[in-house]
Amino acid sequence: MRNTARWAATVGLAAGAVCGPLTGAAVATPGATPFSLYAPSALVLTVGHGASAAGATPERAVTLTCAPAPSGTHPAAASACAELRGARGDFDALKRRDGAACTREYSPVFVTVEGVWEGKRVSYERTFGNACVKDSQGGGFFAF
Amino acid sequence: MRNTARWAATVGLAAGAVCGPLTGAAVATPGATPFSLYAPSALVLTVGHGASAAGATPERAVTLTCAPAPSGTHPAAASACAELRGARGDFDALKRRDGAACTREYSPVFVTVEGVWEGKRVSYERTFGNACVKDSQGGGFFAF
Repeated sequence: MRNTARWAATVGLAAGAVCGPLTGAAVATPGATPFSLYAPSALVLTVGHGASAAGATPERAVTLTCAPAPSGTHPAAASACAELRGARGDFDALKRRDGAACTREYSPVFVTVEGVWEGKRVSYERTFGNACVKDSQGGGFFAF
Repeated sequence: MRNTARWAATVGLAAGAVCGPLTGAAVATPGATPFSLYAPSALVLTVGHGASAAGATPERAVTLTCAPAPSGTHPAAASACAELRGARGDFDALKRRDGAACTREYSPVFVTVEGVWEGKRVSYERTFGNACVKDSQGGGFFAF
């Protein structure tokens, strides 16, 4: 019995040491599915012509999954995930690249982002003066 | 003036004849990207414990792209796309399968769907009594 108890205590401690640091990121999943050891990050990005997404038709839509590995129909999923992670999920922090050459033509395009980033719901919209300006933000997160 | 007006009317009719049949399906893309010949269908689905998604943490999130081909982190993307197409995009039309055996245990789970289905924005939420009931809808669209 004493040996069993000691063994159980050791296993418990080991499990605590392994699982402890994951708290906040590790999320229990419903049903019989095994635990997910990462917070979900799955987004749908849309783009369309117009100054606002309200009432406008999304002309393209891509998906971007960033956990456990980058995937999706975004044309550069891996770099887009790295970029958003670098910005700590703040889409407004994606600023126009230095030296990006765009005309000042006003032909507004909107982008929307919806879904989940690191376990938190996301709903974002932003309008750019034209498609070139949109594509020139950061590392090309909105270039899809 | 009368000639100008007639010319304008003719151009307007011609534009209507060319553009009319494309409305809803074919959509021009912004920037230099070639035209997209299909309406986008890209979704993010989330699931979590609770009677409502409001304020609740999404525990899993998967993507589902259905055009031009099924893809995404949904565990059965091809059949999920076929199922939703069969339901004409009506998530409420996905009903519980005959013979599905679930307990009546009340442990509510919610699902959300956001993104674009055949070019139209989607924002959907539904709650099930427990995870088994959720997984028993239709062909398993919500089983992720």
